[in-house]
Amino acid sequence: MSSQEENDGLGGIIDGKAIAAEIRAEIRNDVSSLSSVIPGLATVLVGERKDSATYVRMKIKACSECGMESIHRALPADATEGDIIAVVRALNEDACVHGILVQLPLPDGINEENVLSEISIEKDVDGFHPLNIGKLAMRGREPLFAPCTPRGCIELLKRSGVEISGKEAVVVGRSNIVGLPVSLLLMHENATVTITHSRTVDLASVVRRADIVVAAVGRTEMVKADWLKPGCVVIDVGMNSKPDSTRKSGYRLVGDVDFEGCRKKASLVTPVPGGVGPMTIAMLLRNCADAAMKCEKSAAQ
Amino acid sequence: MSSQEENDGLGGIIDGKAIAAEIRAEIRNDVSSLSSVIPGLATVLVGERKDSATYVRMKIKACSECGMESIHRALPADATEGDIIAVVRALNEDACVHGILVQLPLPDGINEENVLSEISIEKDVDGFHPLNIGKLAMRGREPLFAPCTPRGCIELLKRSGVEISGKEAVVVGRSNIVGLPVSLLLMHENATVTITHSRTVDLASVVRRADIVVAAVGRTEMVKADWLKPGCVVIDVGMNSKPDSTRKSGYRLVGDVDFEGCRKKASLVTPVPGGVGPMTIAMLLRNCADAAMKCEKSAAQ
Repeated sequence: MSSQEENDGLGGIIDGKAIAAEIRAEIRNDVSSLSSVIPGLATVLVGERKDSATYVRMKIKACSECGMESIHRALPADATEGDIIAVVRALNEDACVHGILVQLPLPDGINEENVLSEISIEKDVDGFHPLNIGKLAMRGREPLFAPCTPRGCIELLKRSGVEISGKEAVVVGRSNIVGLPVSLLLMHENATVTITHSRTVDLASVVRRADIVVAAVGRTEMVKADWLKPGCVVIDVGMNSKPDSTRKSGYRLVGDVDFEGCRKKASLVTPVPGGVGPMTIAMLLRNCADAAMKCEKSAAQ
Repeated sequence: MSSQEENDGLGGIIDGKAIAAEIRAEIRNDVSSLSSVIPGLATVLVGERKDSATYVRMKIKACSECGMESIHRALPADATEGDIIAVVRALNEDACVHGILVQLPLPDGINEENVLSEISIEKDVDGFHPLNIGKLAMRGREPLFAPCTPRGCIELLKRSGVEISGKEAVVVGRSNIVGLPVSLLLMHENATVTITHSRTVDLASVVRRADIVVAAVGRTEMVKADWLKPGCVVIDVGMNSKPDSTRKSGYRLVGDVDFEGCRKKASLVTPVPGGVGPMTIAMLLRNCADAAMKCEKSAAQ
């Protein structure tokens, strides 16, 4: 699976930052080749959560770097479900908007499913509309958009030269936003996929079967080196705070995988930060650019 | 998993016919308790395929036995996609119809996805609308209807006292109508699920991990006894014709599992015919009765 598979040294690192930069350059190139359309991403932020505000700011900045427009809508923390849906509907109608991103989580008391279901399927660049997930699940039914983080995991594998077809993949976690859709994408890439979760008995021995491990469970450094088949490839979707007194902040970010340990067993591992993280925004921009390109194409016909 | 797990004799047989009869009795009971609504199932048959006509006839007969109405629409083999969609739309509007079943396969040249997507999600008792599949895939998003054969597999397990939670389940086949949805249902029942397919390397050894095997691949007696973990439970969704000179017809129906061989290894096996087969219609009626019961409830509010 990699030239490092058989050696006893440390496994290679999949540089998500570099791969995301490569993808952004491709997007910039595609965007500049459009003649009549400028891709527009709408971001909807409800309330004052600092982390959410940071994520939205990063997305807006990334848009501008790729030559894309962003349209921002901020609502107060006490906005009603009806208020948010009204904003979404107006964005659905806005021809300058090719993708709509409602930043999650929404404040308590707001039904996220109700809000997300309102996003026009053609603008659902996050790929979380149940209709998009249904088409993602079914064979021969291309979804308009695949969810960004799962799609990013697949891109990391492909651009690192990892063959997926015929391999055993084990996904740790079955969340709607990562575990489930990444399992479906791996299945469509012809991997033999096992989906594990909190009820899985002897998780370590299940993970030990995997040629490809995707950890998306949200538990600090849970996957250990002795859970891995030698030479496997590990994609770490986790993003957890770990106390670290040497840092000014008092903590550092770590994944769901014990990175230093696992490098001794795996042929390739993604680091945290700098692995899957940068891919999520890159794939969001990719989905939005694709939507705009489809728009220009259909207008030309 | 069963009292027969540890013995060296033959495994038990899951009697799908008896379980389906039990479910039909429950449905009959529920239907008779409705005061203002008679559940109505619409069947749409296009063309002259004998097998399709037989399936539709069986469904209509089963409806009547459960006290349900059936509304049949037959179209000629040269009906256009537009003709079929017009029929579906009229049934969507018909308040006497609680479920719509378009018998597959449709004639060549008709896009099945286009037709099935027209069925109102509230009447999609087959459960194949991508929106229903999306909700089936996602956690916490109850689909209105689960597809009948996969739901039938789960019922067979539950009513045979098989514990699913925490067990290893291996599904052979990833079709939209069985393999994929049954994998999702098993996952929601907290099994650790592996989905296998034609690209799976060493299928036998993957199946050998399973406490629960669901074979849904459409290949005559492919799953052999030496593929099984002793004491496992086997659900055989296959329905294949095998040449048999002792039969007047010249063939007999067999599943995807070598039944006689596998009984020596498994604790429980479904036979073909008489296993999963009868469950499909029972679950179709269940879905349709549920739709009507929901109707009466919401009318009363």
